[in-house]
Parts: sequence; structure tokens; C-alpha cells
Amino acid sequence: MVVDGALRAVRADPDLHLLLVGPTEVAGAVVDALDPVQRARITVRPVHAAVGMADHPSAARGESTVRAAVAAIRAGLADALVSAGSTGATVTAASLGLGRWPDVRRPALVATLPAVGGPVVLLDVGGSLEPRPGTLARHALFGAAYAAVAHAVAEPRVGLLSVGTETGKGDRARRQTDPALRAALLPCDARYVGLVEGYDVCLGTRADVVVTDGFTGNVLLKAVEGAYAMAGGPPAGGRAPRAAALLGVAGTVVVCHGAAVGEDVASGIALAAHLWRRGATDRVSALLYGGGTEDRTDRSTDTEVRT
Amino acid sequence: MVVDGALRAVRADPDLHLLLVGPTEVAGAVVDALDPVQRARITVRPVHAAVGMADHPSAARGESTVRAAVAAIRAGLADALVSAGSTGATVTAASLGLGRWPDVRRPALVATLPAVGGPVVLLDVGGSLEPRPGTLARHALFGAAYAAVAHAVAEPRVGLLSVGTETGKGDRARRQTDPALRAALLPCDARYVGLVEGYDVCLGTRADVVVTDGFTGNVLLKAVEGAYAMAGGPPAGGRAPRAAALLGVAGTVVVCHGAAVGEDVASGIALAAHLWRRGATDRVSALLYGGGTEDRTDRSTDTEVRT
Repeated sequence: MVVDGALRAVRADPDLHLLLVGPTEVAGAVVDALDPVQRARITVRPVHAAVGMADHPSAARGESTVRAAVAAIRAGLADALVSAGSTGATVTAASLGLGRWPDVRRPALVATLPAVGGPVVLLDVGGSLEPRPGTLARHALFGAAYAAVAHAVAEPRVGLLSVGTETGKGDRARRQTDPALRAALLPCDARYVGLVEGYDVCLGTRADVVVTDGFTGNVLLKAVEGAYAMAGGPPAGGRAPRAAALLGVAGTVVVCHGAAVGEDVASGIALAAHLWRRGATDRVSALLYGGGTEDRTDRSTDTEVRT
Repeated sequence: MVVDGALRAVRADPDLHLLLVGPTEVAGAVVDALDPVQRARITVRPVHAAVGMADHPSAARGESTVRAAVAAIRAGLADALVSAGSTGATVTAASLGLGRWPDVRRPALVATLPAVGGPVVLLDVGGSLEPRPGTLARHALFGAAYAAVAHAVAEPRVGLLSVGTETGKGDRARRQTDPALRAALLPCDARYVGLVEGYDVCLGTRADVVVTDGFTGNVLLKAVEGAYAMAGGPPAGGRAPRAAALLGVAGTVVVCHGAAVGEDVASGIALAAHLWRRGATDRVSALLYGGGTEDRTDRSTDTEVRT
């Protein structure tokens, strides 16, 4: 399905160049299926040891496809990383290889759900499963900046996911984070709208950014996917995202759903290209931490990408 | 909406008697709208102080509608309690007034989702937001017994909700609960199938009982509701439940969704009647704790109730 996704992505985006990191025979199948012009946009870097879904993420410390892909970014051979492998291994490899933003222990995975009122940015969806209140509060800043930069949301409304909307609802982490966010200064003229519920993530009527822990966010995202499957397919303009961006590392990294099919991998590649062209990672970082020496040019020529 | 729900319930179920506990003028509206035969099945117990959604649950310790309703059960004036008010207040009042099962600190709220393969019992959906691993493991027993007794599921398959299906996926609570459940003896010939994901809750293909903490369960349930709203309404046979049963107290208690409309209240009343007629609470308790002096007769004449 990575082959299928790569083929779709190269055909859909004439400005895209792919560096395929993995077994040569798989990469060969991609290259052979393309016409010569498209073929010129593919480079192959043979690596055989992938980190399996059941492996410990620290396996990404050894030689592996994901580590080789990160090394390619460091070497300037690639601008962005897309992985459909183990999320934990990708997060580990990216954190170690690209470096983390200040004070970030575990990067956040950010998914965007298309909703009635526009995109809803949900984070975290699997990066840190047991964040402290300080991490949840920081994710609110990440999410606000990401919504503004990646999706051009003006004055993002930021909500904290809980079991009710009244002040005081929720577990300890939520009860500590809620007042912290009321007092927080958010970037991009974002404003904190208080507690929101699962319902609001799908509808998007109350918040553009929904903050939660990676455990709840991951479960929620897959439940929404299941509900749409039950409903006979996603509604018009309302599919569950199958790729998530990593925020908190100094680079453009996209993680695909563990059960991704070719279309999902292609959407992950498109998301990575979109984010890189907007200079999203560097611009979000600059919004949060102030200036820097990185190139923050908006390289975007494309319109909104739905993942 | 409580009036509307009560009217619907009395009309739909000719064997149902309602004890309305609340403001007289509201109850009067119910009684006036019924024909004399139906009217004879309604009794009113006037109480004015309700516990608001934003009140602390301990407000249920004082005089309130929910406390008066619990007192009516203790006095033998009612068999089951249905509340569309504050969940916390209902749980508190029921725990104090009816007593808890052995070792139960916070009762569990159990919701049933209709899925492709039959009903999926999800617990907890808001009773204990931060359960210890031991509580999660006990909820697996509760859920297995409830699926067998309330929904006639044979040999229920029990899963633990996490962020992946491979052993080791999840936060600390899940990583501790998973091996405990592998070693646990479950009632009703239930078997533990391991970790499941949000997707499986909606589809029901991997488990009949899904165990999680009350925070995640509540968020998931409302997200599924939002997804179905996005999809233009629930799919045939797949709506999100709007009422949940309380397990862990010595009595039949049903809590309706905080944003319940009349139809939801009526479905909550029908669930309570269904559970009482099956002697569900006592039979689940007997399966978990062995014999007792309670009446465990199956009073059921009805077929499966979808909530």
C-alpha cells in the first residue's frame, strides 16, 4: 500500500519528488509503473530493516527505514518525512534525529477533521498518552498556531476536551488545565472557549482546535472512523483523517494510520508537501518561541489540503 | 423534555407505572395530557430542589429530586430510578441511598451501542474518570455479566480499549490491566480478546464488551453521536445510546444523556423497565459475588430493548 500511495502521490502532484526509503524490490515496483518523466522524480534509498508494529519504538534507534529516512532529511536529501509504519518508532526516530522544540518531551500528533464549520484540529492523537497538565496547555498553543498556519483559520477557537462543558467537569488533568488555559496567552489571536465534548470534535461548531491527551484523541479518532464506516461511508466533507502531523520536532513529519491503504498514504504525502510548502513547522515554531534562523518562507502554491 | 419522555413511555408500555418526582406543575402537565386509564398509572411526588448540571454532585446529599427518587425506591414505592439530571448527583444519591456492591468505590455507567455483530456493551462512560487498573479489570467482569443478562449475549468477547491492538500498546493503566485480564476468570463463559480500538466499539466485530475509563468512554460516546449527526443521522440499526445503566449499586438506575430530548428520556425509562423485568442488577450481582437473598427472578416478558 506504500507503493500504491507513492504512485498516486507522484501522479497527483507534478512538483513532488519522492525519496523512497525501503526494500529495493518494493521501490522497483513503484518506479517501473511510472512513465519516464514521472520516474525522474523518484529516488530510491535501499533499506531493509523496518520497525514492526509490535516492536518497541526504541527499535528505531538501530538501523531501520524510518531512521534512514530521518538521516536523509538531515543530509538535505529530503524536505519532509512520511511514515506508514509504527507511530512510536517514527516519533522516536524524528525526535532523536531532527531534535525537539524547547521543553518538548514527547511531540504531539495533530489530526485535522473536516467539520461543518471548517477544519477541526485535534491534538494529541497518540504522541503522549499521559501528558501532564502543562503539556496539555502547551498543546493548546501548538494547536492554535497550527490551525492558523496550516489551515489558515483566523482567530482560532480553542477548546479542552472533557466529559461536560460546565467548569469543573473532567478528571484531575482537565480540572488543572482549564484554569491554566483561561489565563494563557494564545498565539494568532486565538481564544480559549472552555470545555468541549466529543460531539464538538465532529461538528466543529464550538471550537477549531480541540486539545486532549494522546490516548483519548487516538481512541476518539478511530471511533469516528468506525461510526462513518457504520454509516456506510463518511458524509460529504466529513471523513476521518488518516494521517497526522507531528508537532514538536524540528522538521516536517507526517504519520499515516496504522491500517493505511494507498489512498491514505497519498493523503499523508500530500499533507507533508502542503505543510512543507507553507513552511508550517518553522512558522509554528516561530509563533511559539519567537524568531530563529530557519527559513520561514511560505512555499505554498496549493490550496487547502484535506487529509 | 422529561414530561415529553414520560408521556411517550406511558403510552408505549401498558404495564409501566411512573412515579414522577419533581415540581408539581411539571408533573401536572404530564397527567393532564393522558387519558384516564393511563392517568391511573402515574403518581406524583412533589419535590422542587433539583441538582443543577453545574452543581457539585454532593448537592445530591441534601433534599433534591434525585434524593427523593432514591428514597422512594428504598420505601418500596418504585422499582427503578431514571434521571435526566446531573450524572454525578445521580451516582452519588444512588450510591448513598441504595448501597454499593462490595469493593465498589465508584459505580460504572454502562452504555450499549447497536453494532453490526449485535450489541456492544461499553463501560465505563462517565462513572469513574480515573479508575485504577483493578477497577478497569472489575469492569470487565461487570460488563461480561451485564452483556449476558441484559442483552442475552452468549459467551461474551471482552476487549480492553487502547490505541492499538498489539500487546503493550497503551498507557500505564492499560499495560497493567491487559495482563490482569488475560489471567482473569470471567463470568458467563466470557473470554478476554485483548486490546481493541475505537473503531471496534462502533463495528462490534471484535468484542461484545469494551472496557475503558469513564473519561475516554464518555468522550467516545459523544464523538460517535457527533459522527452520526455529521452523517445526516444514525445508520439503520446503529444509533448512539442516549441512556446508560449504573452498575455497582444495589438497585436499577438509569442515567439519561445530559442533553436528552423526550425520545431519549423515554428510551431511558424503557431501559430501566427492561433491566428491572430481567432482574438484571440482582442477577449480575449474583454472577459476580455469588448467592444472595435478593429476588433474582427474570420478570421479563419483553424482547431486547435498544437504548
